[in-house]
Amino acid sequence: MIYLDYAASAPMSEEALHVFHELNKEVYGNASSLHDAGGKAEHILNYCRRQLAGLIHGREEGIYFTSGGTESNILALQSVLNGLPASKRHFITTSVEHSSIRNLVSLLQSQGWEISIMQPDLNGRITPEILLSHLKENTGLVSIQHANSETGIIQDLQELSSVLKERHVLLHTDAVQTFGKIPVHADELGFDVLTVSSHKLYGPKGVGAVYIRPGIPWKPVYPGTTHEKGFRPGTVNVPGIGAFIAAAAAMIGQMTELSQHFQKLRSHLFTEAERLGIPLKPVVQEVRAQVLPHIAGCYFLKAEGQYIMLECNRNGICISTGSACAAGQQEPSPSVKALGATNQEALRFIRISFGQHTTLQEMDLLLKTLQTTSFSKL
Amino acid sequence: MIYLDYAASAPMSEEALHVFHELNKEVYGNASSLHDAGGKAEHILNYCRRQLAGLIHGREEGIYFTSGGTESNILALQSVLNGLPASKRHFITTSVEHSSIRNLVSLLQSQGWEISIMQPDLNGRITPEILLSHLKENTGLVSIQHANSETGIIQDLQELSSVLKERHVLLHTDAVQTFGKIPVHADELGFDVLTVSSHKLYGPKGVGAVYIRPGIPWKPVYPGTTHEKGFRPGTVNVPGIGAFIAAAAAMIGQMTELSQHFQKLRSHLFTEAERLGIPLKPVVQEVRAQVLPHIAGCYFLKAEGQYIMLECNRNGICISTGSACAAGQQEPSPSVKALGATNQEALRFIRISFGQHTTLQEMDLLLKTLQTTSFSKL
Repeated sequence: MIYLDYAASAPMSEEALHVFHELNKEVYGNASSLHDAGGKAEHILNYCRRQLAGLIHGREEGIYFTSGGTESNILALQSVLNGLPASKRHFITTSVEHSSIRNLVSLLQSQGWEISIMQPDLNGRITPEILLSHLKENTGLVSIQHANSETGIIQDLQELSSVLKERHVLLHTDAVQTFGKIPVHADELGFDVLTVSSHKLYGPKGVGAVYIRPGIPWKPVYPGTTHEKGFRPGTVNVPGIGAFIAAAAAMIGQMTELSQHFQKLRSHLFTEAERLGIPLKPVVQEVRAQVLPHIAGCYFLKAEGQYIMLECNRNGICISTGSACAAGQQEPSPSVKALGATNQEALRFIRISFGQHTTLQEMDLLLKTLQTTSFSKL
Repeated sequence: MIYLDYAASAPMSEEALHVFHELNKEVYGNASSLHDAGGKAEHILNYCRRQLAGLIHGREEGIYFTSGGTESNILALQSVLNGLPASKRHFITTSVEHSSIRNLVSLLQSQGWEISIMQPDLNGRITPEILLSHLKENTGLVSIQHANSETGIIQDLQELSSVLKERHVLLHTDAVQTFGKIPVHADELGFDVLTVSSHKLYGPKGVGAVYIRPGIPWKPVYPGTTHEKGFRPGTVNVPGIGAFIAAAAAMIGQMTELSQHFQKLRSHLFTEAERLGIPLKPVVQEVRAQVLPHIAGCYFLKAEGQYIMLECNRNGICISTGSACAAGQQEPSPSVKALGATNQEALRFIRISFGQHTTLQEMDLLLKTLQTTSFSKL
């Protein structure tokens, strides 16, 4: 099987598995227990907190571990919104966020929050102008993804956060797809609140984290919570967190090499597709928007993505038609529609995403399958 | 180190670690992905659902996997309350529930739910009379733990559920401490909604499940959720779930033997304590209430539990003064206070909890430490 859906999930690395195994044997106490077994777990947990803070250039007291990216988004937004003064009940996000945020918006609306949804420009970017046109006196928090999980388009958070900073509006960013792939640097990007996840970068599933810049007020979603300084209730998954941090550190340690590797795969895919007459086009030209190197979001111009995905699957190749968290939904993806695609065009979207061990040979096998499909009676 | 705090957390069994390892290598796809890698994960997930349904004698379509016991309690209660008709806005629980439920109660109250808190009798039991005295016309849901995590006292759910069934009131039970230790049988106990957790029975941390008897209406806490039929959002942790189910099946397979083993340890502890003149008494006599065999909740009559816990810790033995999820709180435990203890008595509480590999020799070493402590200048 050729797996090209790393943006949906990745296997744990050998290193992460090893750390998980060792921690389960040695550090199985409940991190909240007051005896040495608990102390040992708490010690590792705090070590992981420091490590993660280092990886994002933040401060350890701002790190809260969770059960994954979705929970991170939900708790981060609710906790920070809860901490805003009554005069700041306007929340802005985008039409292209992960489903966890899109779904939370309905809940926030029913709770009386005033919500604005920004539409990116035709290159998938939220520009300072778009952001400014949505800001109001009572805007308290803005949530903009660092990069899109389907199109791979990266937002210029540095530019956007400076607009918000001047106006004392907080910025949350969902960096689930970018963490470990491109730099996620708290000061440089200027976010106040951050979501990251473990299983997209070879850590275990069921682990994630939130960073809230120390000093920013927030209130627990579940009052009375003691774990994670009140941020998330429930026994902390220390072995999983240790494995996550090991995986994240390894990815960040080889970021430059991996990025070059991904660029090579991506460019090979599109260049060869063109040479072979395969009707495959990136959803956005790289000159018009920065894109994540490991995600190739593209249109297959002659057929629905669903059909191409199934054809690939029949040939032992796993690609996707978009976010797995919205799989099974019949509607075309809002992230693709935002690029100006008609419904019909948007349904021709496929996502090919690479892992650290993906090879040029695998790209060639994918291209061969796409070529056969192109010349079949479509 | 002698670890005697298995009620707080247990290490993963070799078997569970092996399953986790294999699934991470072979079944790493996102269970929501539509290609074969996703299909494989979904297949294992559904196998686990069937297995867990079998272990509780329920139906697979009622099983929803979560990130642990606390999240299970929170989502189960909120989802089922959301599904009740407007005429049923009264919720009853007990004063001795796990902190996740006690904390949720504050949130529910602020959302306008009418709440009653039942106090058990002096043997820690919720009797049918106590339950009846709290039921009202508009009672929709009652949550009663299967057994207490501190005292080990087991509730007679069979008796209580029949009271509720006649009156069409739903019963949720938190079986985090009982699942895998004593039978948790859907039809026999008669619960409608169930919470279980993985890491108390040698599965990984960060995994749990909820059972909602099919046919009972519920509404997602987060509207629009696709994973787990809308019950819980976020990528499903299939390797963790697989390991949980392997651990649970193993525990249930040897329940009788283990129960006898635990009984032996428990009875040795109290008999020897008495013989040696150690001022250690069970919080409740077994003739007055059924207790979990692996939890010895007791009073050390001559000193605060905190002091005993630290003395044991100094001697390399991990015991606790109560639930790890409430560790660090200064108040005496509500579960111990409910037994009629004064504040001072309640602060003399310690919990000793056994694992499958706990030995009589370890009990003797604990007794020796307790004995030395008893005869020191207390």
